[in-house]
Amino acid sequence: MDSQNNCQPTNQSKMDGKWYRELNLNWEGYCQSFQVEEVLHNEKSQYQDVLVFKSKSFGNVLVLDGVVQCTERDEFTYQEMITHIPMNLHPNPQKVLVVGGGDGGVVREVLKYESLKEVVLCEIDEEVINVSKKYLPDMADCLTNPKVNIQVRDGVQFIREHPGHFDVIITDAPDPEGVAAALFEKNYYQDLKNGLKPNGVACCQGETPFLDLDLIQKVLSQCKEVFPNVGYAVGHTPTYISGMMGYIVASPDPDLDLTKPLRTLSEKDIEIMKLKYYSSQIHRAAFVLPNYIQKAVKGVIDT
Amino acid sequence: MDSQNNCQPTNQSKMDGKWYRELNLNWEGYCQSFQVEEVLHNEKSQYQDVLVFKSKSFGNVLVLDGVVQCTERDEFTYQEMITHIPMNLHPNPQKVLVVGGGDGGVVREVLKYESLKEVVLCEIDEEVINVSKKYLPDMADCLTNPKVNIQVRDGVQFIREHPGHFDVIITDAPDPEGVAAALFEKNYYQDLKNGLKPNGVACCQGETPFLDLDLIQKVLSQCKEVFPNVGYAVGHTPTYISGMMGYIVASPDPDLDLTKPLRTLSEKDIEIMKLKYYSSQIHRAAFVLPNYIQKAVKGVIDT
Repeated sequence: MDSQNNCQPTNQSKMDGKWYRELNLNWEGYCQSFQVEEVLHNEKSQYQDVLVFKSKSFGNVLVLDGVVQCTERDEFTYQEMITHIPMNLHPNPQKVLVVGGGDGGVVREVLKYESLKEVVLCEIDEEVINVSKKYLPDMADCLTNPKVNIQVRDGVQFIREHPGHFDVIITDAPDPEGVAAALFEKNYYQDLKNGLKPNGVACCQGETPFLDLDLIQKVLSQCKEVFPNVGYAVGHTPTYISGMMGYIVASPDPDLDLTKPLRTLSEKDIEIMKLKYYSSQIHRAAFVLPNYIQKAVKGVIDT
Repeated sequence: MDSQNNCQPTNQSKMDGKWYRELNLNWEGYCQSFQVEEVLHNEKSQYQDVLVFKSKSFGNVLVLDGVVQCTERDEFTYQEMITHIPMNLHPNPQKVLVVGGGDGGVVREVLKYESLKEVVLCEIDEEVINVSKKYLPDMADCLTNPKVNIQVRDGVQFIREHPGHFDVIITDAPDPEGVAAALFEKNYYQDLKNGLKPNGVACCQGETPFLDLDLIQKVLSQCKEVFPNVGYAVGHTPTYISGMMGYIVASPDPDLDLTKPLRTLSEKDIEIMKLKYYSSQIHRAAFVLPNYIQKAVKGVIDT
């Protein structure tokens, strides 16, 4: 891929006997490992290494370029947060775009809104969609829903062809190395803004604050140059290395309070929507940052 | 140790080349590993295996019976939460007891309150205190403070000899296997209650909700049989396996709102107290639980 980051490969992950060890220079000296029952898929696609294995205790696990993208056991934590935070900041989300997210997990969550008319899934790597349909059915089965429009292509180009079209755009990207590098650049935030309606909301994978504060500061700063309204939220995902995931939330509407969901989900709503993580209270709490994160993002974005 | 739990040893951790792998049957099939630069201490004390190693990227690491107790890099997350939640629920904490916590981290945080007259550290295993003084100075240096009363003995007996004596009691215990098993029993909560003044507050290590929900339900239920007022809070600690730590908070005062700190720390307070995690906002947010945890504790405690 033509990355403007010129990142060196940092992936050093390896299958080590019956264990998969997620080794990476970005978190040198530390790793998580999964006991492997069976390797289900292990091939290089046009864009990246695609590995799926059945783990002993976390269900099937999808790994791209050596970094865990999701496990069946804890994927709900991430999919719910990256989806329901922006969806609940829009009064009537009808047109939604998911950039990346070929596993289908975010689309599954988007489909829970009755107001929805269409969700476009723009995944550049068809292989991710294919292996997810085969090995991650709880996430990818939803991709046959008639409201889902699957586009196997570059998300940036798709947005440029649909200016001012979307109520919500969710960027479910891997880390900013390899295929997803462009999705962490200032130009991408400009594209995101152009693709949104004036009251639209964007939410992007925001890296792991315990390990990536410098990167997060840089990315938030670029986002803030484009959007008048940028927030940063956190949630707990055990298998994203270090256990805490960040979410970048942005809107062209300067007056929208990103920390306050526009609708309050009742217990009944939560049951019907099968939400295991997100609630209206969690939405607000997710923007309350531990001091070390707050200190890093203060001055970069409004907190 | 004479444990009423009759737990079987679950520790399978091992030094594996230059890596320390934290393997345990309680989280079978998954593990975290630290690259080891030097083993600093590795001996069996009277009570447990005590290991300290210098890691490549998390500073010095203390491991008891094969389970990571703290790393220099992220210990602040745990020490601050288990200390400042109960300390900020008391209007004037003067007498504080720490049960366990021989590394000194909790005592360091307790000493940040001007109202404090005495903090008793009741650690049964002197070896933990000794290795912490030697290898974890940022935590254990405070143990020479004249307000600190170190008792190398069983915390339960100490509490029984000091009924109604304490404003805050913090139980900084390892998991309920081996030496700390009794600190997760109903009798212990009765002792805690007896040791507190009527407006006192207790806070106990509350396990990792993603992996231990059944145990947490059981422990909260036992606590609630004794205390009229029990809450459960969570925070992010990367190196407690799965990355989210729980805290059991209890008071004999049924009217105390555990989710609302009695004092609001200013930015200046946070700077003076060198708080990297805890703030008054974090205190409130910590009691907002993801749905899967909320569902498990609802009906057991008041949420």
